[in-house]
Amino acid sequence: ALALVEEKICDQRQGLLRVNPAVIDEYLHPILDKTDAGEPIAKGLPASPGSAVGHAVFFAEQAVELAAQGIKTILIRNETTPEDIDGLKVAEGIITAHGGMTSHAAVVARGMGKCCVVGVGAIRIDYLINEMTVGEHQVQRMDWISMDGASGEIYAAELPQTQPELEGGIATVLEWADEVRRLGVYANADTAEDARHALEQGAGGIGLCRTEHMFFEIDRIPLFRKMILALDEIGRAAALAELLPLQRKDFMEIFRVMEDRPVTIRLLDPPLNEYLPKSIRSQTRMARAMGIPVETIIQRTEALSESNPMMGHRGCRLAITYPEIYNMQVRAIVEAACIVKKEGVQVNPEIMVPLVSTSKELSILRKDIERMVTQVTGELGETIVFKIGTMLETPRAAVSARSIARLADFFSFGTNDLTQMSYGFSRDDVGMFLPVYLEKGILDNDPFMELDREGTGRLVKIAVKEGREANPDLKLGVCGEHGGDPQSVKFFHQVGLDYVSCSPFRIPVARLAAGQAMVESQAD
Amino acid sequence: ALALVEEKICDQRQGLLRVNPAVIDEYLHPILDKTDAGEPIAKGLPASPGSAVGHAVFFAEQAVELAAQGIKTILIRNETTPEDIDGLKVAEGIITAHGGMTSHAAVVARGMGKCCVVGVGAIRIDYLINEMTVGEHQVQRMDWISMDGASGEIYAAELPQTQPELEGGIATVLEWADEVRRLGVYANADTAEDARHALEQGAGGIGLCRTEHMFFEIDRIPLFRKMILALDEIGRAAALAELLPLQRKDFMEIFRVMEDRPVTIRLLDPPLNEYLPKSIRSQTRMARAMGIPVETIIQRTEALSESNPMMGHRGCRLAITYPEIYNMQVRAIVEAACIVKKEGVQVNPEIMVPLVSTSKELSILRKDIERMVTQVTGELGETIVFKIGTMLETPRAAVSARSIARLADFFSFGTNDLTQMSYGFSRDDVGMFLPVYLEKGILDNDPFMELDREGTGRLVKIAVKEGREANPDLKLGVCGEHGGDPQSVKFFHQVGLDYVSCSPFRIPVARLAAGQAMVESQAD
Repeated sequence: ALALVEEKICDQRQGLLRVNPAVIDEYLHPILDKTDAGEPIAKGLPASPGSAVGHAVFFAEQAVELAAQGIKTILIRNETTPEDIDGLKVAEGIITAHGGMTSHAAVVARGMGKCCVVGVGAIRIDYLINEMTVGEHQVQRMDWISMDGASGEIYAAELPQTQPELEGGIATVLEWADEVRRLGVYANADTAEDARHALEQGAGGIGLCRTEHMFFEIDRIPLFRKMILALDEIGRAAALAELLPLQRKDFMEIFRVMEDRPVTIRLLDPPLNEYLPKSIRSQTRMARAMGIPVETIIQRTEALSESNPMMGHRGCRLAITYPEIYNMQVRAIVEAACIVKKEGVQVNPEIMVPLVSTSKELSILRKDIERMVTQVTGELGETIVFKIGTMLETPRAAVSARSIARLADFFSFGTNDLTQMSYGFSRDDVGMFLPVYLEKGILDNDPFMELDREGTGRLVKIAVKEGREANPDLKLGVCGEHGGDPQSVKFFHQVGLDYVSCSPFRIPVARLAAGQAMVESQAD
Repeated sequence: ALALVEEKICDQRQGLLRVNPAVIDEYLHPILDKTDAGEPIAKGLPASPGSAVGHAVFFAEQAVELAAQGIKTILIRNETTPEDIDGLKVAEGIITAHGGMTSHAAVVARGMGKCCVVGVGAIRIDYLINEMTVGEHQVQRMDWISMDGASGEIYAAELPQTQPELEGGIATVLEWADEVRRLGVYANADTAEDARHALEQGAGGIGLCRTEHMFFEIDRIPLFRKMILALDEIGRAAALAELLPLQRKDFMEIFRVMEDRPVTIRLLDPPLNEYLPKSIRSQTRMARAMGIPVETIIQRTEALSESNPMMGHRGCRLAITYPEIYNMQVRAIVEAACIVKKEGVQVNPEIMVPLVSTSKELSILRKDIERMVTQVTGELGETIVFKIGTMLETPRAAVSARSIARLADFFSFGTNDLTQMSYGFSRDDVGMFLPVYLEKGILDNDPFMELDREGTGRLVKIAVKEGREANPDLKLGVCGEHGGDPQSVKFFHQVGLDYVSCSPFRIPVARLAAGQAMVESQAD
């Protein structure tokens, strides 16, 4: 494309269309050299591209221990949970026996730009003896594993890797895209480090800062658990007061990095039960650390357990029943914004309420948030400009966008959940039948990877049209994983969103796709 | 109302509007005489009206044993599961500590017209010693319990009950309603006994025959479990072949009762895991009965367990992955229809595919069903008239009704699931926050009791309009519990459905509401 443009055979806009977004993706990851590899021992779903080589481990703790000694690992689990997060961070690659393209492991890995293969049905892990069986192969702890995240292939060997050269040409093409594109490209980023990475990749803001990951950090989870175990509002408020300075510090760091760019902060979303340990071993350890009977923890975990947690007590439903949680979070955001502004840095926070399904939820929570902003800015003698908006992720919210838009400064489509609820597909369980659906041609694509235009996309269109009619100033974006998928980005351009937000690793792809979408729509 | 009409002060149509549907409901259940009752020991959610008096039991098996001796029981559980079905059938009333208005206990009880109180948070059951604690009260096995399903009150005493007189006037009013109503009123009925009851109540057909309950019967569940545990299609087909004559007999009995009236049979809907025992005690018993290692059962149960079973591997997704299940069921339906027709009885089967979210699912399954009908009618030298349709219960199906309608003879809105997925509310877990939502006025009604018009209702309207445009002959009905709710019935009349289907116990209420809806719409 570069050569054609240089030789004036086509102009920059035509040149832009000649670049396949998948090529950009490949240039960003190391490639496995399979010359002498032989046959893979197994194959799974290619959940996150790139390649990885390391020693097999079967527990997140093992990955953490070995990483501290500079040893590279591949973390292999039946499935991963939020408790494994430290192991996921340090492992070179992640393999799971269960789960689909949107299982916990897959989503976290893509967010981290880390190689991941899921749904490897042939794997049998015996955690007791730190060993897995794959057909006739036995893989023990510390054995070499190489994996290809693009093909889903797994090798029981240490294969060489090559880094494709990141040519200057790519930067040039992305500049062309930036010149023409109308869509903003934001990043999903939860930490100052993510934010810095996002800026390097060309992000114009943060479209999704997930505050829940902050509570999993080693210094916070005991406090958060104390909050969950508290018997009443006073107990919860006391535990939250201890969390406040930690959250405030997180936000201060992010604001300092992002300066005047929008930082969209989602208030707590997951069910509280996700923060409690499930195994009796972990429960006992937690009881000992907190100096309380293990029965208390078991009882609370059972009381909070749900048949379908995805459709349960989470998102803004938590804030309706436990208002003190969002109150603390909003205070942390506003205090951080005021402090950083006093330092001379412009700030641009956007506060996002998740999982709204009725306008009255947002009406109540918006009032709570505004009250807290007024109170804190008054205390600190500072003024800040901010937005309050909502994630649009339930079908009901989409078809009642008119009434919700009157109360929102922005909508951010949470297309992961919107896809789940429009199909009635649980992303954690879809591995049971999705491969057959793709094979039989019932679905052309995994709808969690590329947005389904006929169904989920129709709901997005209804919400965009009716939301804008009710509130012409409404800012519209998307923060589901589709924000980093080229075909989906083109759809979001067509329906008139203002921005897409995706993992920092997907930003170059999104910039290119947004540029191409603009050129294509002008050619029509 | 009768008096006014007799005295010619108003005509029948005006008289009809003067009858409150709630009054009909009350006339159909016995009332608790609380004159000397004192204070109730606890109060929960009034899940199914009427009253009940009996001896407290804490296990379904106890209710079954005592019923065999003619002893009346109240079954008290933390929550109920499909495994408790035999106990639910014989108990006078059902009380659960957990769960909301649409928990398993509540839904089953309403279907049976049985008194039920759920979500009684004050109850602590100790299953080991067969005792419950409610505040300062201890209730032991066999202690007397009286309960009021209209108020949710529970008494630790044997209170007298009175049966309100079923005046002839009600029959007259319902006849007026039948004369004017446009909506058909069908019943949700799973057995010939249900069907007979439905006809007595004035049902015009069966709108939902759930075949899954048939597999829980004591003579079938071992066979069905054998099918689930089979390693391949051949093993599954062998187990299903044994189930075929049992299912065929069920359908024959229902067809004989219903004659030429429509019988809408839903093919298997729940996830297979619901049929496997979860406690190690039951698993061991099952292993012994089947002569297989208990590990096999544990492994299969774990392999089939899902994070969000409501959005998992169920409904038509089972038929795509295991076609032999629906093949057996369709064969049973068609063989039964042919045999009964040969006896000289007209039959009118409608075969319903659940949980469709894309038109291609229905396209594949419709072909399978048609192939089986042709094959079986050929074998038996008989012809039958039948319909093939789908439940409309995912938001995606609603917004892509145009493409689905081209492949369907009818849509039956499954408004329970459609409500779950449009709000993202799991009906099993909604008890965690729904009471607060009602208290704070976020919701005016429990959306599982009265259909939400703004959101779920909008999806119904889209599907009705676009479905009819694509297929003008499309028959449209509803088989969620809303089919028995007067306000919802009026909505269904307004949007132009052809029929509503509800529990046989709700049929008089639905007939009245359908008549009133017609008079009201003509008055507009």
